[in-house]
Amino acid sequence: MTEYRVTFLPDGKSIEVEEQTTIAEAAQKAGVYINNLCGGEGVCGECRVKVVKGEAEPHENASAFFSQQELDAGFVLACQTPVHSDLEVEIPPESRLEEEQIITAGEQWPTPEPGEEAPEVSLAPFKPLVRKIYLELPRPTLEDNITDIERVARELRRKIGWHSYDITLHCLQNLSDNLREHDWKITATVVKDKGGYRIQQVEPLDTSHRNFGVAVDVGTTTVVAQLVDLRTGRVSGIEGAHNMQAQYGEDVISRMIYACGKGGLHPLHKAIVENINSLIEKLVKASSISREDINAIVAAGNTTMSHFLLGLTPCAIRLEPYVPTADVYPQILASEIGIQINPLGILETIPSVASYVGGDIVAGIAACGIADHPKVQGLIDIGTNGEIAIGNNEWLVCCSASAGPAFEGGGTRCGMRATRGAIEKVQVKNGEVVYSTIGNAAPRGICGSGLIDCIYELVKNKIIASDGKFNRDRKDSRLRVQDEIPEYVIAPAEETETGQPIVITESDIDNLIKSKGAVFAAIKSLVEYIGLTFDQLDTFYVAGGFGNYLNIPKAIGIGLLPDIPHEKIKFIGNSSLTGARMALSSEAAFEKCLAVAKSTTNVELSNYQPFMDEFVAALFLPHTDHRLFPSVKY
Amino acid sequence: MTEYRVTFLPDGKSIEVEEQTTIAEAAQKAGVYINNLCGGEGVCGECRVKVVKGEAEPHENASAFFSQQELDAGFVLACQTPVHSDLEVEIPPESRLEEEQIITAGEQWPTPEPGEEAPEVSLAPFKPLVRKIYLELPRPTLEDNITDIERVARELRRKIGWHSYDITLHCLQNLSDNLREHDWKITATVVKDKGGYRIQQVEPLDTSHRNFGVAVDVGTTTVVAQLVDLRTGRVSGIEGAHNMQAQYGEDVISRMIYACGKGGLHPLHKAIVENINSLIEKLVKASSISREDINAIVAAGNTTMSHFLLGLTPCAIRLEPYVPTADVYPQILASEIGIQINPLGILETIPSVASYVGGDIVAGIAACGIADHPKVQGLIDIGTNGEIAIGNNEWLVCCSASAGPAFEGGGTRCGMRATRGAIEKVQVKNGEVVYSTIGNAAPRGICGSGLIDCIYELVKNKIIASDGKFNRDRKDSRLRVQDEIPEYVIAPAEETETGQPIVITESDIDNLIKSKGAVFAAIKSLVEYIGLTFDQLDTFYVAGGFGNYLNIPKAIGIGLLPDIPHEKIKFIGNSSLTGARMALSSEAAFEKCLAVAKSTTNVELSNYQPFMDEFVAALFLPHTDHRLFPSVKY
Ligand code: FES
Ligand code: FES
Repeated sequence: MTEYRVTFLPDGKSIEVEEQTTIAEAAQKAGVYINNLCGGEGVCGECRVKVVKGEAEPHENASAFFSQQELDAGFVLACQTPVHSDLEVEIPPESRLEEEQIITAGEQWPTPEPGEEAPEVSLAPFKPLVRKIYLELPRPTLEDNITDIERVARELRRKIGWHSYDITLHCLQNLSDNLREHDWKITATVVKDKGGYRIQQVEPLDTSHRNFGVAVDVGTTTVVAQLVDLRTGRVSGIEGAHNMQAQYGEDVISRMIYACGKGGLHPLHKAIVENINSLIEKLVKASSISREDINAIVAAGNTTMSHFLLGLTPCAIRLEPYVPTADVYPQILASEIGIQINPLGILETIPSVASYVGGDIVAGIAACGIADHPKVQGLIDIGTNGEIAIGNNEWLVCCSASAGPAFEGGGTRCGMRATRGAIEKVQVKNGEVVYSTIGNAAPRGICGSGLIDCIYELVKNKIIASDGKFNRDRKDSRLRVQDEIPEYVIAPAEETETGQPIVITESDIDNLIKSKGAVFAAIKSLVEYIGLTFDQLDTFYVAGGFGNYLNIPKAIGIGLLPDIPHEKIKFIGNSSLTGARMALSSEAAFEKCLAVAKSTTNVELSNYQPFMDEFVAALFLPHTDHRLFPSVKY
Repeated sequence: MTEYRVTFLPDGKSIEVEEQTTIAEAAQKAGVYINNLCGGEGVCGECRVKVVKGEAEPHENASAFFSQQELDAGFVLACQTPVHSDLEVEIPPESRLEEEQIITAGEQWPTPEPGEEAPEVSLAPFKPLVRKIYLELPRPTLEDNITDIERVARELRRKIGWHSYDITLHCLQNLSDNLREHDWKITATVVKDKGGYRIQQVEPLDTSHRNFGVAVDVGTTTVVAQLVDLRTGRVSGIEGAHNMQAQYGEDVISRMIYACGKGGLHPLHKAIVENINSLIEKLVKASSISREDINAIVAAGNTTMSHFLLGLTPCAIRLEPYVPTADVYPQILASEIGIQINPLGILETIPSVASYVGGDIVAGIAACGIADHPKVQGLIDIGTNGEIAIGNNEWLVCCSASAGPAFEGGGTRCGMRATRGAIEKVQVKNGEVVYSTIGNAAPRGICGSGLIDCIYELVKNKIIASDGKFNRDRKDSRLRVQDEIPEYVIAPAEETETGQPIVITESDIDNLIKSKGAVFAAIKSLVEYIGLTFDQLDTFYVAGGFGNYLNIPKAIGIGLLPDIPHEKIKFIGNSSLTGARMALSSEAAFEKCLAVAKSTTNVELSNYQPFMDEFVAALFLPHTDHRLFPSVKY
């Protein structure tokens, strides 16, 4: 019998085989692996190869597996194709052993909306956790009578990658009728889960445009939700609201006390679910879509918020030895906790590192790409806690310090969150105050970034001293005493929306000094803990609910951020939300979150003496040790 | 610095390392893999090794990972143990890469109850799909403050194997309180799913004795359920009932026609669910357990029954090209289809091979171990279909032929299923009939095995001829004509429970000849299809709802089974039920079912001419070609 040589690419192994041997058998002899799920029956399509030199005819049923273009390019099923000339056969990645597919063609990380920082994208290709894939299936014949669901899976493999797909009972129900009544045209909803891919639902005809997701930042003070079109990656809306849990306590600790006392967990769980439902309601209305079009939610929050969201008691988090129920959370149906989207829509919760370093910071790390770069970078997320992460693509450490609500607009007389009417920039010139508000509306209060500007300007203009006390001798009509409390008027009553003046009191300043002191002390302790100095940080990302804006030099000026070259500090807004959106839109980003949560080392500051010392030393504007802030000149 | 030699067993690789290097680092240098889930933090416990020579001290927290016995035996965590002498270190299987654990100690396949055939067990160690494991957890400390669920998983790894465990939201809810209120004593319910293991539930205190499963054979005629104690493997009860779907049609085809016509799927789905619920009700009452103690059901049925059970339309199964919705079914909660057991209890459905070779035959193949042995063996499951499988540990082929309900006690005047009061053995001697009934009760009818005996005896005694017609000339008081139909009286009216005589009519005989003809023709066609002859079969298992008994020589005598040495034919009763019970009780058996379903080749007889020819030739007692039955001498 004639023998022919078959060479396998890319690894170049070759073998002589008798005529009529199949390519699959030749590969086996040559010790080259080709997928072979159906055992060479020609029904699974796993053994696709490309004949690049020599002649090979596609087998009878080949059009069920390949597009015309692929057939023209020489694609055949290895198990169905006999050798009758010398061949060079290329084994494409999908036919090799279990290599993860990366889809790039036509799918790119979306252009961010105006006002939104572009995330690092190179390692997070667009591939949402839930995809809807429109399929036109070949009709079954006596020669090709695999089951309906296997026919769906086979077409999915051709279209989006050669995985094995889990199935749900739901996707089987009515499948037979749906296929036959709608001309074999269906849309499959494919969900990524930790273990792999699952066909969640099969709908008749093309519904692939009805696929939205919601990224949620569950903050202690505010909850923000972003609607994402999962077909394109485009952000179609954003809404925010106060965390309705505030009625049970301003900060995390008081809410835990409420939940673990007679109040119980339920009201706090319910509050956050209602928060999210009402944000979704708004998003859906504004975009004229239906709730059923939302198939996925990714939520990022601190560990306690994640527990509240999922209905898990956070009681052991609060007490030594600080133990959460879980730090990696299962994927669930959003409906299981009463969130009203598609009944088969999923909810993923970004994993936490530890009791006080939650999914919000993990999402933030993913959003700014710290874990992807060789250079050491830092991230600080300033909310009611200041959470800090430092690291690179080899290691990550993090810590957390209680900052109080000042930076989110809480705990100060006229504080408010960064929404319309909040004073966000302040300048004092010759005794005159120039401010601007979000949305250029009449001022209603002052948000975190306005507060930082304000304190900086007051010190700079010697209205307050380095210890935070008003310089009472100073003649300034804005500096006054009301009910024995000295205060400084930022916006007089006649300018404000409420008719009440917007002021800063000495106790506001005191609060802010404690907040910024805790944050700075935490940064410094962590940097020194890992044996670095500030100047070894390549980039320092600052995130937080300040609004759209943070004046870096002024934040350094009050001693909140370390005095490093300003261009190394980047304000990135709500990185928790950005990270949640990335995880929603990119499997790789979601997996990065899991990897970050697993590999980050938490440094517990609560009993760490160097932190205590740093904290006390930082209760000054900018700092008791002025050498730490050489660039700050008042 | 001093260097020491570390040798790793079992593969014997060795390396010199500096003092204080950890065993894990040494292994890495030596190119020996040790699990390392937590990255060497000493918290995951994945890197357990046994120091068999040399000195190594367990680290501080070692008692969280090892029993005293293990510590005494030299177990340490590789990542936490510095080298300070020459060492020989054994890497136990659980610390090696992803090798599947086989648990043997203390867990053995149960002794079968009296009257039950022992299944092949060597390849199906007892390890139920759902296990309840009682755990006493070490309390968390500041040094050991992993999350609650990770603490549960860590202890599970120690106790039942080193897997990663999926979690459900349910197992997290109340976990924190349950642990702390019950002294860290809990019972975890662990479920095997296709992908791996899942912690399904965590209950306070020790509930491990409350773990039962139910194996169900969903037959077209009868439904049989067996209660299994999943802690011991013991069978605690068995109940059977007529398939309540019979009201919509006697056989599978007429039920499909009903379901696919105006009747709809729902009544058939509901009927079988109610069937199972009422069997469970009986089992639970008889064993004085609670429905909530049942955590798993494994159901085996033909492809159509499996579809009905899961609420999937079987309509495309009936028509060319015979396409089921699915042949591998997802694991679901039994409650999803209304089966009343523990709300978190699972239901697995044994996968099918094809439209007319279902999970019942797959379970049967697993039960008799055909796929595990090098010698060629056969299995025939005789119900309303005769399904035949032939093969060995390298290949399997199967086919199916419609046999009609005769062998299950249907379609004949006095037929009944094999329950109390059924005539199961018949002998005719000198014109006298000797019979025995199931339970030695007064006869109520005649079951499949009784019918076979009967026909054989009637031919042997020349009461009927080889063509199945009564020898009307014969003088025999039992041979009579009623309403113009000749019949033979097996039990006269005065002996029966009903007061009606139990008789065999000519049309009963005719039915039986057609049934046995179809079965024999199918066996012969399949054997010849694969190029074998009968005498190449090492063993031929016969299963079916005949009751506890089938007389092999008589079954050969009427031409139902091939004429091979009698000792090669083994009657194994309800192998579908046995296989379902094995799958329930042994992960390996369940996986075997999956493998069998995937790898078995179905031979479609419906258009296969040799089968038609064989069928016609077999419509005789024993056969038109008497040379095929040399041992049969009437
Ligand atoms: S191996 Fe399945 S089609 Fe070739
Ligand atoms: S690697 Fe995790 S305990 Fe050693």
